[in-house]
Amino acid sequence: MRPSGRTPGQIRPVTITRQFTTHAEGSVLIEFGDTKVICTASVEVGVPRFLKGQGKGWITAEYGMLPRSTHTRMRREAANGKQSGRTLEISRLIARALRAAVDLKALGENTISVDCDVIQADGGTRTASITGACVALVDALNYMRAKDIIKTNPLKHMIAAVSVGIYKGEAVSDLDYPEDSAADTDMNVVMTDTGKLIEIQGTAEEAPFSFDEMHNMLALAKDSINELFDIQKLALN
Amino acid sequence: MRPSGRTPGQIRPVTITRQFTTHAEGSVLIEFGDTKVICTASVEVGVPRFLKGQGKGWITAEYGMLPRSTHTRMRREAANGKQSGRTLEISRLIARALRAAVDLKALGENTISVDCDVIQADGGTRTASITGACVALVDALNYMRAKDIIKTNPLKHMIAAVSVGIYKGEAVSDLDYPEDSAADTDMNVVMTDTGKLIEIQGTAEEAPFSFDEMHNMLALAKDSINELFDIQKLALN
Amino acid sequence: MRPSGRTPGQIRPVTITRQFTTHAEGSVLIEFGDTKVICTASVEVGVPRFLKGQGKGWITAEYGMLPRSTHTRMRREAANGKQSGRTLEISRLIARALRAAVDLKALGENTISVDCDVIQADGGTRTASITGACVALVDALNYMRAKDIIKTNPLKHMIAAVSVGIYKGEAVSDLDYPEDSAADTDMNVVMTDTGKLIEIQGTAEEAPFSFDEMHNMLALAKDSINELFDIQKLALN
Amino acid sequence: MRPSGRTPGQIRPVTITRQFTTHAEGSVLIEFGDTKVICTASVEVGVPRFLKGQGKGWITAEYGMLPRSTHTRMRREAANGKQSGRTLEISRLIARALRAAVDLKALGENTISVDCDVIQADGGTRTASITGACVALVDALNYMRAKDIIKTNPLKHMIAAVSVGIYKGEAVSDLDYPEDSAADTDMNVVMTDTGKLIEIQGTAEEAPFSFDEMHNMLALAKDSINELFDIQKLALN
Amino acid sequence: MRPSGRTPGQIRPVTITRQFTTHAEGSVLIEFGDTKVICTASVEVGVPRFLKGQGKGWITAEYGMLPRSTHTRMRREAANGKQSGRTLEISRLIARALRAAVDLKALGENTISVDCDVIQADGGTRTASITGACVALVDALNYMRAKDIIKTNPLKHMIAAVSVGIYKGEAVSDLDYPEDSAADTDMNVVMTDTGKLIEIQGTAEEAPFSFDEMHNMLALAKDSINELFDIQKLALN
Amino acid sequence: MRPSGRTPGQIRPVTITRQFTTHAEGSVLIEFGDTKVICTASVEVGVPRFLKGQGKGWITAEYGMLPRSTHTRMRREAANGKQSGRTLEISRLIARALRAAVDLKALGENTISVDCDVIQADGGTRTASITGACVALVDALNYMRAKDIIKTNPLKHMIAAVSVGIYKGEAVSDLDYPEDSAADTDMNVVMTDTGKLIEIQGTAEEAPFSFDEMHNMLALAKDSINELFDIQKLALN
Repeated sequence: MRPSGRTPGQIRPVTITRQFTTHAEGSVLIEFGDTKVICTASVEVGVPRFLKGQGKGWITAEYGMLPRSTHTRMRREAANGKQSGRTLEISRLIARALRAAVDLKALGENTISVDCDVIQADGGTRTASITGACVALVDALNYMRAKDIIKTNPLKHMIAAVSVGIYKGEAVSDLDYPEDSAADTDMNVVMTDTGKLIEIQGTAEEAPFSFDEMHNMLALAKDSINELFDIQKLALN
Repeated sequence: MRPSGRTPGQIRPVTITRQFTTHAEGSVLIEFGDTKVICTASVEVGVPRFLKGQGKGWITAEYGMLPRSTHTRMRREAANGKQSGRTLEISRLIARALRAAVDLKALGENTISVDCDVIQADGGTRTASITGACVALVDALNYMRAKDIIKTNPLKHMIAAVSVGIYKGEAVSDLDYPEDSAADTDMNVVMTDTGKLIEIQGTAEEAPFSFDEMHNMLALAKDSINELFDIQKLALN
Repeated sequence: MRPSGRTPGQIRPVTITRQFTTHAEGSVLIEFGDTKVICTASVEVGVPRFLKGQGKGWITAEYGMLPRSTHTRMRREAANGKQSGRTLEISRLIARALRAAVDLKALGENTISVDCDVIQADGGTRTASITGACVALVDALNYMRAKDIIKTNPLKHMIAAVSVGIYKGEAVSDLDYPEDSAADTDMNVVMTDTGKLIEIQGTAEEAPFSFDEMHNMLALAKDSINELFDIQKLALN
Repeated sequence: MRPSGRTPGQIRPVTITRQFTTHAEGSVLIEFGDTKVICTASVEVGVPRFLKGQGKGWITAEYGMLPRSTHTRMRREAANGKQSGRTLEISRLIARALRAAVDLKALGENTISVDCDVIQADGGTRTASITGACVALVDALNYMRAKDIIKTNPLKHMIAAVSVGIYKGEAVSDLDYPEDSAADTDMNVVMTDTGKLIEIQGTAEEAPFSFDEMHNMLALAKDSINELFDIQKLALN
Repeated sequence: MRPSGRTPGQIRPVTITRQFTTHAEGSVLIEFGDTKVICTASVEVGVPRFLKGQGKGWITAEYGMLPRSTHTRMRREAANGKQSGRTLEISRLIARALRAAVDLKALGENTISVDCDVIQADGGTRTASITGACVALVDALNYMRAKDIIKTNPLKHMIAAVSVGIYKGEAVSDLDYPEDSAADTDMNVVMTDTGKLIEIQGTAEEAPFSFDEMHNMLALAKDSINELFDIQKLALN
Repeated sequence: MRPSGRTPGQIRPVTITRQFTTHAEGSVLIEFGDTKVICTASVEVGVPRFLKGQGKGWITAEYGMLPRSTHTRMRREAANGKQSGRTLEISRLIARALRAAVDLKALGENTISVDCDVIQADGGTRTASITGACVALVDALNYMRAKDIIKTNPLKHMIAAVSVGIYKGEAVSDLDYPEDSAADTDMNVVMTDTGKLIEIQGTAEEAPFSFDEMHNMLALAKDSINELFDIQKLALN
């Protein structure tokens, strides 16, 4: 039923390449099938003004797509002079999810800036970004430990994310672009490796969805995210 | 337990004033307790360029807050030269929800522009906006029918929205500002009056939430939204 | 002669509602007939950089219109990414007029930010803004006295404003939109309750105006503004 | 009494140099003492969208100051990414005044774009701009006549402008910078050579002004503007 | 003498990977040592407005750097709301150089948009961009031939580029970041494979350079660029 | 052969007027035939943030064109909300060239801001700007010496610039607009009066250029720039 021939709960092959670029404290290339995102985590001393003097750190995130990461070329946001609502929304989602994974007090007055840049898009770029960014974040935190910038590990739990949806009336996991553009409903789920939810965003694209459909999607998401935790852990060892 | 003395499932008094201003085809003041939003629906001939010639209409939405609708004055976005990510995210949510309520084919090549301007904020402005905008939209569609701009009623179902959350460990409905700023989790739910979901956005603010907590929040949301449908219908008669 | 049936010197019914919203130190809804403006005055500690250390306060003002406050929807300035020349010009006028009413030394190093947001427009929005903003300013100054932020009352005199013009060859006061859009000349006058002028801006829209016509307009303005001072005082008691 | 030793009604030496630059259809350098402004009038085929098909022309104006035209360097507006409220306000004033001098129907569907760029500022730049721009406009209209772009002369009357004010309690004409920065009141007056008013903008800078003071300022303005008409005519012959 | 141990005329290892991403008609990853740039060439029907109806095509280029492609994180230009002067200058250089390689008439009314995005920077990003972009351009032109969009090959000659400079008093080729930041002079040279110059930009960073030094740099550039043509040709076979 | 009748190496009449405007510490009008540029140098205490505390000064430059300095009116960059890539590129070139002429240490923690505003354009505006700006810079440095802001003269050497090109197959110096718009190649050269190169930027506009052509252009540039040094020195005595 799925264009890719996958079973409803089957995610695409996922690979995580650490140290993908050399300058960032954490640098990961994450691939969900043909979706490829570079996630870097940059450690910076100091915090934004609204946090100064509170002894807490901060995590920000910015998301972007290369102009020709997509089927047809998109205008470059830097040339447009502004980021789209979609870009800002995804940036906010990534940052919020990562902050929920970290004890900001343990981070001290330091900032970790995460950049997720999509070099090739085939659906699920925001959930791939979160999943990859968490690994880059771990590397950045390890760097801070190694450099004695922080005393303890601020990571409370790993996080990972997947998109699920209703495609041709059935719940499926990890939608690729052909599925995503035809789906009735699209839901992004972010979870912790302790089995709890960080974020859930479900949207009726074509038709409202029932409570039952929501439960089916969530069940798939939970299983897929558990697979992602295994892949993250493998990459980190 | 709640600062307002409400029971967990109790929403604030909601009032809907139609024809609040005179120029818009639909103009509604909606109040959820101390949260007050002006929602207007403006009928415009034509559609954005990407839709031209397809015989379909379009619905857009923009959200804004008066600078002193909040406890401390916010900078005016028009003076800043850009809308915040939060503003764009809420605008996109309102538009998406309203489009899901309407048969865009039946709308013809016309656009309805919805503006939701918060004049006083006390939590839940985005869900109040959606609930009020739906009534303004109905008035605009009735205007189009009366003027013979459209032949049939494009409305597929009413929509309404409420925010729910986990406050002091318990699920509560229709959070006001004191609850919202202290909640562990915040979830916005948009539903149809046919009992289906249009949008669900749950966010762990302080702590991840369990599947059980999610179900408890959703159950409250369903009941509260049903109350809102009654209030909408009363206003429309 | 006038579309509304008013006599040349007759202003529209004016109502002033204080404490219109709850957060601002001064919050006024002013209505000149169908023109409705929310005026808030926000007290903020500190002054802009160019004034620091001089022991003086500052008053700023920003003016805006809701997109559908007008007959046809205007584009939202925040979405456009800039304020129009008209908006900035009116904002500057309001701020200048209010500063002329206040002893900035007596204000201490504090700033009062005034926001005038038009929710419904039917001509005369800038003069309604000034007249309403002065009442909001008084409330904000009273708040500062009550909180011991200032020792003395910095208000030097009340100010109020009206638009006058030449309509069908005759001087008339308080033009509504049908008159305003057809007037030969339009003049905005701001005065003190001590009978002096703060600002006078007369513009030939269709035809140059004579010195005699100017005097006729000014005479009407003086009478109308005196009526406005009575209405302000009534509202403040 | 005046820093320059001038009598209250005495304007500075005014010179008008036509064909100051070679490309523009009208190009004038106007000097009011040390205030120097380049005014060009550019003829362009076509009109802005809102006027298309109405058989009328349009006149626009833009005002700017070279960054070091002033005592201390101002930031370049092009580098700032926006024009200040003051710049936009003056641009609007110049354009409005020039449009009031021309029969737009007789201009056909053509646009004249006027640029007033201050190369040296010593007070009164906006009124110098208007006075010089009118001469550049005449040259541009003559060019259009010579090229048979228009059939009749669209000029209804010449316009000129001067600033007057209350300086040390006395009405004076054509304020230079030392007077302008110390004046109690500042008033810009634009008149036609038929003795009528186009625009009057009086502002209380330090203290409100009386009706008597206003009349004194206007009387000086009338005389000074008549002198300016003589200088314009001399330059045009 | 060189930090990398290279001889003065020795360039870094250069690799060119075609079809690096899947959507673009031409997509190349070019590596000059640790400098890595993704170059895509996107074919679009139509030309910018200023070229319409002339039967000619157009080539544009945009350059960007991922925020953490550098030693310390740079602010994202899309978030800043504008591209830096450096970015625009390099974009213009790349586009100009590519246009000089193509017969725009033979391209028909089509546009090729080239994007050069630096994912890792170690000096020489602009010359690497040009060298890689030329290969992506060839792939895009081949695509157009294969799809019968064009009848003949518009490529007039291959182009390639290298940076040369005076480092510690001696001319060296292909400066890496440690050399670039310490060089007295920096010169970017773009040539055709017919031995002619397309662009030469030499800049005294620390000290003026003599005509002799210029000739030495040019001689190195010529040899290095010839090596690059071999590498391009190898990649294209 | 040249439209102006000049010999290949002949530059246009060049005049330099110092103290052209009164406020700037250095103010020069430079004319290369019909190209006219106002160059001002403004002395400001302090340096940009990235230089603070290093005991060094800074020189910045901004370039602009009046909207009707050209054959057809260009849009005003301040109204557009951004400077073009060409403007930024030229601004960067001027600043870089001037910094190469000055010992920034000897300047102390002061900034000289140079503004080059083209009031009439006929080719070669950027090289005229550099040549005129150097004279304005000398005046500003002399002002600083006279005011004891600096102890020694920071000027290392004079700089001047000319554009050369290949026009109808032959190398020519100081291209005017008709030559510039038809040239095959255009090269801007900045030199010191000690006979060294500061900047060389050669661009193939229509056809690639040979090494021989480059040498011919450079030889002309050297001679022309020597003439410019004589003219600068004459102006400074």
